[in-house]
Amino acid sequence: MEAQGVDGFLVPRADEHLGEYVPPCAERLAWLTGFTGSAGLALVLRDHAAVWTDGRYVLQLAAQAGPDWTRLHITDEPPPAWLKAHAAGTRIGYDPRLLSADGLARFVDAGLDMVAVPHNLVDAVWTDRPAPPCKAAVPHPLAHAGTSSEDKRRTLGKELVDAGQDAAVLTDPASIAWLLNIRGGDLAYTPFALGFALLRRDGTVALFMEAAKLSGEAMAWLGNQVDVAAPGTMQAALQRMAGQVVRVDRAGSSVWFAQVLQAAGATVVDGPDPCTLPKACKTAAEQAGARAAHARDAVAVCRFLHWLDTGRGPGTTETQAAARLLAFRGEVAGFREESFPAISGAGPNGAIIHYRAVPGADRMLGADEPYLIDSGAQYPDGTTDVTRTVWTGPGPAPHTLRDRTTRVLQGHIAIATAVFPVGVAGPHLDALARRALWQAGLDYDHGTGHGVGSYLSVHEGPASLSRNARTVALAPGMILSDEPGYYEPGAYGIRLENLLLVQESEVKGRKPFLCFETLTLAPFDRRLIDPALLTAEERTWLDAYHARVLREVGPHLDAEAGAWLAAACAPL
Amino acid sequence: MEAQGVDGFLVPRADEHLGEYVPPCAERLAWLTGFTGSAGLALVLRDHAAVWTDGRYVLQLAAQAGPDWTRLHITDEPPPAWLKAHAAGTRIGYDPRLLSADGLARFVDAGLDMVAVPHNLVDAVWTDRPAPPCKAAVPHPLAHAGTSSEDKRRTLGKELVDAGQDAAVLTDPASIAWLLNIRGGDLAYTPFALGFALLRRDGTVALFMEAAKLSGEAMAWLGNQVDVAAPGTMQAALQRMAGQVVRVDRAGSSVWFAQVLQAAGATVVDGPDPCTLPKACKTAAEQAGARAAHARDAVAVCRFLHWLDTGRGPGTTETQAAARLLAFRGEVAGFREESFPAISGAGPNGAIIHYRAVPGADRMLGADEPYLIDSGAQYPDGTTDVTRTVWTGPGPAPHTLRDRTTRVLQGHIAIATAVFPVGVAGPHLDALARRALWQAGLDYDHGTGHGVGSYLSVHEGPASLSRNARTVALAPGMILSDEPGYYEPGAYGIRLENLLLVQESEVKGRKPFLCFETLTLAPFDRRLIDPALLTAEERTWLDAYHARVLREVGPHLDAEAGAWLAAACAPL
Repeated sequence: MEAQGVDGFLVPRADEHLGEYVPPCAERLAWLTGFTGSAGLALVLRDHAAVWTDGRYVLQLAAQAGPDWTRLHITDEPPPAWLKAHAAGTRIGYDPRLLSADGLARFVDAGLDMVAVPHNLVDAVWTDRPAPPCKAAVPHPLAHAGTSSEDKRRTLGKELVDAGQDAAVLTDPASIAWLLNIRGGDLAYTPFALGFALLRRDGTVALFMEAAKLSGEAMAWLGNQVDVAAPGTMQAALQRMAGQVVRVDRAGSSVWFAQVLQAAGATVVDGPDPCTLPKACKTAAEQAGARAAHARDAVAVCRFLHWLDTGRGPGTTETQAAARLLAFRGEVAGFREESFPAISGAGPNGAIIHYRAVPGADRMLGADEPYLIDSGAQYPDGTTDVTRTVWTGPGPAPHTLRDRTTRVLQGHIAIATAVFPVGVAGPHLDALARRALWQAGLDYDHGTGHGVGSYLSVHEGPASLSRNARTVALAPGMILSDEPGYYEPGAYGIRLENLLLVQESEVKGRKPFLCFETLTLAPFDRRLIDPALLTAEERTWLDAYHARVLREVGPHLDAEAGAWLAAACAPL
Repeated sequence: MEAQGVDGFLVPRADEHLGEYVPPCAERLAWLTGFTGSAGLALVLRDHAAVWTDGRYVLQLAAQAGPDWTRLHITDEPPPAWLKAHAAGTRIGYDPRLLSADGLARFVDAGLDMVAVPHNLVDAVWTDRPAPPCKAAVPHPLAHAGTSSEDKRRTLGKELVDAGQDAAVLTDPASIAWLLNIRGGDLAYTPFALGFALLRRDGTVALFMEAAKLSGEAMAWLGNQVDVAAPGTMQAALQRMAGQVVRVDRAGSSVWFAQVLQAAGATVVDGPDPCTLPKACKTAAEQAGARAAHARDAVAVCRFLHWLDTGRGPGTTETQAAARLLAFRGEVAGFREESFPAISGAGPNGAIIHYRAVPGADRMLGADEPYLIDSGAQYPDGTTDVTRTVWTGPGPAPHTLRDRTTRVLQGHIAIATAVFPVGVAGPHLDALARRALWQAGLDYDHGTGHGVGSYLSVHEGPASLSRNARTVALAPGMILSDEPGYYEPGAYGIRLENLLLVQESEVKGRKPFLCFETLTLAPFDRRLIDPALLTAEERTWLDAYHARVLREVGPHLDAEAGAWLAAACAPL
């Protein structure tokens, strides 16, 4: 720090792409502090060090980071305010590749003297830092993508022309994967290849990606309108853009891009990544793929639910149950990997919304308690994400638990059956999912649903069903999760999740109306449902859904599992 | 324009307070163009003139403004873009007292050279311009207000201290009326006195208001912490604030204030008018007043509905019906004036959302058609706003109309019965009011509800039930309208409106839950309701509501009207 002329240095849990998952080489926060949660920030001052995380990880932070660190809650004591109180007047260094312009502004607006440091100070002392991942990038065939990269690039190039912009910087690997119809393996759970790109107004692309990731086949697939260059050449390429108008996403891209472009004499314009919205609106081929992937995934999920109900041993643990589900998925055609780490929570662990069971430290599935399993998979034709809450038996579920679960189910059905005009956004529908809970003074502290990619991120923007999210109008082809829940801390958790596909409704009005097609196929545990609470319409929906599950999944099960599914899917 | 060195001049439909209604002396747009709608903007260039309004007034603009004017739709061809296309490179003059900072920014951001003109160019040639209104400002007693001005000023002064601000500029006469517990008569429909104020951090106020409005009694009521000065001295007072930090609302206040303060060396900070939120949260006295005012108003409304059903002559026109309602209200204790011009629309006129019937050019109430009446009143203890849609008979209402009206009623009930946790804002609830319509491919093109003042504006911020509004959390004491509708252009319109008061719910959860108390008391026309469409809960609500209307209003009616009300309120 002394050599760089700074009095402190920020270490966020982030890589250069500012995404949800980071490769081991970017786990600077974990290396420095021992804290392995997925969200956090450390600040090293000359004689003091602090580390922040959010409510999900406060206990984990206390256990992992140790008492040398001042451990803080990121909402209760926001880093800019804390810094202002404890380090006012000092120069705080940051790595401009790991902070967005919006993120930086929160520190600058608090009056802090923020200094961009050219080389990350952690990297200078992290002697056994892993190498960056370098897995092969492979073509994502047109049969799955539905639209050629050339068509996508031409359309977005025209959008740049209309906006009076010469180019857009793409820093989200999911955008690059979508735009170029490629997939990769650099990170777990999400099949993309890490890299950066410049999309130009003429529809050509400069792709900054390690040559070792790209086989001859991949190079041929990219074609001659995509120039591939080493990531190390990107800075020079940006510096050659003097006089050009370049779109950079203030919220989603590292501030480094805007800083380099501005220093080089380019005009930087704030604007959303142009891939985000079209990527969310799945093509007909992607929609067909999603249906096919969900139908195959459903076989594994139903086999698992059958095993859970009749086959598991008495000492089965949360990690063993999750492993069994993964094993069933491994038998599904096209299965590549999980789309996120499964959440397998028995009894009170179900109330921990982002619970992650650890072998040896996990819980056995007890008798007569609810068990929550939230999991998903990546297939070349689609990404899945499904949650069920199951009663372990053998006794009947208590009345209160059935009341809560039924209210969660009513919220799930209210979204699944919603019909709404174009222009309506997810935040406007969220209350429908909560109404039955609210009437009883209950609620859940998370969004109702998130966007889902097509063989890409299981958490995808720009649309969501969260009240605090941007009001992005829902549009045909978007895939969203519908996952209301209810959590009784220390006792149990309930969440019921299907993925839904936005479609044009058969309902005709003076403007187009939209509705949801349910993609996920798995029974809801009838032992947790109180039929007396359901309206006639809700019962009709549930019976029809179960009949569809039996019709589409049943033929792929063996006799015993098929008989189990038939009972699970019988009319209420 | 030549003398001022400008090539054009903007004439918005606005006064110095930027509110909904303007006094005759500020009707510059109407004087200049002949157009009398409540929203519009004219631009006079050296050899060309254009005038804009919104979709509500396009036909009226065409009829009134004449062909010398280029007449434009304000959303389809926004003035800044049009100006850029037709007057680029020229200097456009504007009166800084009639445009907010946000409004000005839309022109500046479009690259236009905007020039503040010290004296309005219309006033220089408007020789018979009316004098500004000068009605008496009178005390609003503590029995109605519930909190003394001193307490309000001390609380808000402390808020300024906490925000590090020395003063706040108040330009909304409703804020001043609330803060100082005074009412006035300068404008129709809203009982406030036009003026400006400076609220200081010590809780004192400088009130800029014509001395002629303030009697000795009023001066004594204001007390010695409120200095009254002539409006003409305000500029000098602002210029004495060098070095102070002053809050000005960018969106709601004239840019003139920020310009004068900045030129004088004050630091201008953007921030909402500090009165807006506390004014919306009615005191216990204001809530009791609202109940009492609504109970009295209900007698007039029920008498009117009885007359409409059994007493009106066959040739009754829309304006005659509205006049009859006004006459009934004139008999109510404390009635002061209408809270807005009543909307009285028979048959197809009900589909015109902001319809205003004109004597001689209005429609007779025909047989067998729906009639929509939206009206309200000002009482010293509260402001009312109620809409009913009534079937004129004598035949039965057609099936489709009953279907539509019942769906609107279902939406109304969904809001009236909503229970929701603190933190939820109006835009989150809007979908509940539309769900029954959406399921049939129907919708309405207006918000579900607006805030209502306490013997103040019938349209009051900051909360609303509109999807496009700010997400201001609902809070106990707020009064909102609940007015879903359905409109079949050229055929009929339906709207059903009660005012609701936000209350803490009896439902207890881990956080506080809120609900609505219905204030308005008047039957919904059962001839337009299809009971088969209602759920059991909806029927229960409607029967209970009607029983309450009969119980609370019935005793105040004569025998004949009482018998009519009993039939109108019988269980479905």
